[in-house]
Amino acid sequence: MNVEFINPFLSSMLNVMSTMAMMELTPEKPKLKQGEVAKGDVSGLIGMVSDQAKGSLSITFEASLAIATMKNMVGEGPDVVNEEITDLVGEITNMVTGGAKRMLSEKGFEFDMATPMVVSGKDHTINHKAEGPIVIIPLTSAHGKAFIEFSFD
Amino acid sequence: MNVEFINPFLSSMLNVMSTMAMMELTPEKPKLKQGEVAKGDVSGLIGMVSDQAKGSLSITFEASLAIATMKNMVGEGPDVVNEEITDLVGEITNMVTGGAKRMLSEKGFEFDMATPMVVSGKDHTINHKAEGPIVIIPLTSAHGKAFIEFSFD
Repeated sequence: MNVEFINPFLSSMLNVMSTMAMMELTPEKPKLKQGEVAKGDVSGLIGMVSDQAKGSLSITFEASLAIATMKNMVGEGPDVVNEEITDLVGEITNMVTGGAKRMLSEKGFEFDMATPMVVSGKDHTINHKAEGPIVIIPLTSAHGKAFIEFSFD
Repeated sequence: MNVEFINPFLSSMLNVMSTMAMMELTPEKPKLKQGEVAKGDVSGLIGMVSDQAKGSLSITFEASLAIATMKNMVGEGPDVVNEEITDLVGEITNMVTGGAKRMLSEKGFEFDMATPMVVSGKDHTINHKAEGPIVIIPLTSAHGKAFIEFSFD
């Protein structure tokens, strides 16, 4: 089931980053996470619940990309990951998940979103503990990398 | 509303750690998170969704406490945070939230749980982006500290 979810989450991410921050990201090939570890500096995480399935999503940014996104949006930004940046990453996570939710609803898959959490800390990793496979989509940009990961039971 | 939730989450945490791992934790006074930062090395996070409210919970451990918990449970454990430890932290997060869910259900507050995520990375911090206040409960032990944090819209 997870594979059908790739396009809604990916296209929502590209759309949010492009329209909010004029930030063009290049997706690499989505793959099932097996052993590889996506490290980043600031991540937005959100839980998803439906009658059909439960799951979780994360969007992990390198600090340089998160800071460049803020600068693109408002013309200036901090030099380090601060609360402005974690707020922005939480908001991006919410918007990406909301966009995917609308697209998946059209395919008959409905879910409710919990509230986002944002983790900051250099080189942290996220482990999704749903029972299904974990999809990981690496994204590259001139300012650094991002990773979308999600999994559903 | 969040304040009513303190006892269910706190007593569920003490109960899970005591019965699963014979690990006695001493809670400090719960407080609203204002500026202070709870740093840890491995955290379990879970989203919660109900008709009444949405929210998120995290349980953050110092590595020493997570590793000691594993050793207490199974007689041996790794020296560093590895997948065994993140699995354990995900399971603890699920059990604590499930216990609190049962207690809150008796008070008429129902919610569904998403699947847990686990973050590992030295000295990371969690930011809950629900709109309500964030409750933080520090816990101490001979093996290190833990923090429960939660927030609901």
